[in-house]
Amino acid sequence: MSSTEAAPRGAAAATVGIDWGTTHRRAYVLDAAGRCLREHADGEGLLAARGRFEASLAALLAALDADGEGVEVLMSGMVGSAQGWVEAPYLDVEVPLAMLRERQVGVPGPNRRIRIVPGVRLRRGERVDVMRGEETQLLGAAALGHADGWFVLPGTHSKWVQLRASTIVDFATYLSGELYALLSREGTLAAAMSGGEAHVAPAFAAGLAAAADGALSNALFGVRARVVGGAMAPGDARSYLSGLLIGAEWHDLRRRCGGRWPDAVTLVGEPGLAARHADAARAFGVALHGVDPRAAHLAALASLR
Amino acid sequence: MSSTEAAPRGAAAATVGIDWGTTHRRAYVLDAAGRCLREHADGEGLLAARGRFEASLAALLAALDADGEGVEVLMSGMVGSAQGWVEAPYLDVEVPLAMLRERQVGVPGPNRRIRIVPGVRLRRGERVDVMRGEETQLLGAAALGHADGWFVLPGTHSKWVQLRASTIVDFATYLSGELYALLSREGTLAAAMSGGEAHVAPAFAAGLAAAADGALSNALFGVRARVVGGAMAPGDARSYLSGLLIGAEWHDLRRRCGGRWPDAVTLVGEPGLAARHADAARAFGVALHGVDPRAAHLAALASLR
Repeated sequence: MSSTEAAPRGAAAATVGIDWGTTHRRAYVLDAAGRCLREHADGEGLLAARGRFEASLAALLAALDADGEGVEVLMSGMVGSAQGWVEAPYLDVEVPLAMLRERQVGVPGPNRRIRIVPGVRLRRGERVDVMRGEETQLLGAAALGHADGWFVLPGTHSKWVQLRASTIVDFATYLSGELYALLSREGTLAAAMSGGEAHVAPAFAAGLAAAADGALSNALFGVRARVVGGAMAPGDARSYLSGLLIGAEWHDLRRRCGGRWPDAVTLVGEPGLAARHADAARAFGVALHGVDPRAAHLAALASLR
Repeated sequence: MSSTEAAPRGAAAATVGIDWGTTHRRAYVLDAAGRCLREHADGEGLLAARGRFEASLAALLAALDADGEGVEVLMSGMVGSAQGWVEAPYLDVEVPLAMLRERQVGVPGPNRRIRIVPGVRLRRGERVDVMRGEETQLLGAAALGHADGWFVLPGTHSKWVQLRASTIVDFATYLSGELYALLSREGTLAAAMSGGEAHVAPAFAAGLAAAADGALSNALFGVRARVVGGAMAPGDARSYLSGLLIGAEWHDLRRRCGGRWPDAVTLVGEPGLAARHADAARAFGVALHGVDPRAAHLAALASLR
């Protein structure tokens, strides 16, 4: 994918921002005034680029006509992990997001200014959690005026983050997307499913409600039990599973908030999963504010340059 | 596997009991006095025998020298499911285990008395659960004097069952074994693991403790977060995951018991997983009574003949 925004013809690239994840990569080319000239997304994530990050980046910059010597490259995501290009050590929670700019790690190289934004780590008693990439989205959301409260960034590994005055004070990652993919593809639950990915709203809502119980491993078996026990049609099982997994995230939020739903949650994410979280928010009587992830990333780049 | 108990030479088979599951099958041959003459286990479960149950049983009986015309065959497990040989409709909970004998379903056929024990179903509000095979083990456990309290039958789908005066009053199935297998084999957690299946006791104990939080989908991501966040060695990850999944079962039990641990739990299971549940019971200060699954099945057959 590649697109061009309204920008002066022939404007020169000054900054390239790259969200470089495990399986995907998204790049934005900005001019000196911070206007987005071009953007691009591809599947050359960490797994595909490992061992040849420098060549992979050079090819990307050339394709984006952004390989001038003065171009600054700001990267976030798994590219800064121990398995990435250069490790950018985690910041610990309770550090203001503004520190991300200061703690960027330079990538050694002769011609370009290439920097990687650090991830964030939580170690609190038995709880350990990490993020890489989401902190940059949150920096952008905060710059756009969303600097307090609970945030959800849905995905393969869904993140729930509490910000206070633009500082990450708590967060939790959920395996939801990965569990959904694994359990829909193989094993006992997959065998009880039929039909495609079509969303069945009542089944999703039933899954949301069943997640209140808190016993997820039991509720997961319940996907199969409901089908073989004659309480659910096989074609409803995928949506019910999705409701269970997303519902587990929401009910945990309630628990973290002392057993009460917060007034509002801010979602930074793509439309597909955003729609499911909007269903959940509606079911639980919570206001859901949306932040466009592209706008968040561009706002973050403005803060990081 | 095949073995012979102390029994008169040449004693004739009178009853064959078969626990016929999805992937495995176990058979016991009894004489008219109820003594176990021979037993056998193989991998000819439902999936392997589907479409040819009659031939599969005939071959098994011939191999066990139990194919005489008068031999009675009593089967339990998935063989009685909708995907099995003949469907034996579920009994609903709150039915005394003694009813299993009465509600056996006959398999049509000219020469032999073949019957299938029904499974048990729970439908209580949003909770739906099913079992097939475990009810027969529990009938046997009750006959051996374990007729009250909470029981755990560990496995791919771990069952927790409450008996009251030899009646199943509540039960819950956990996807533990299947989740452990899936998540150890592929995906994000598997990538963070190293080493073999060796049990690491402190990592297992840490998993048991972390499960108290109740947020399983978050705790599962924590397996990876602890490794990449420098809080756990990759070689500990499998045991930690095992602790989390088994711990989730135990902490749910505590919740079901009004937030208090019961005094005792009875385990019907094989030594491997039994040892992990013994670790959990010790950690939580609960007495664990063991019932040998073979003895339970033989006691069940004595009740069902």
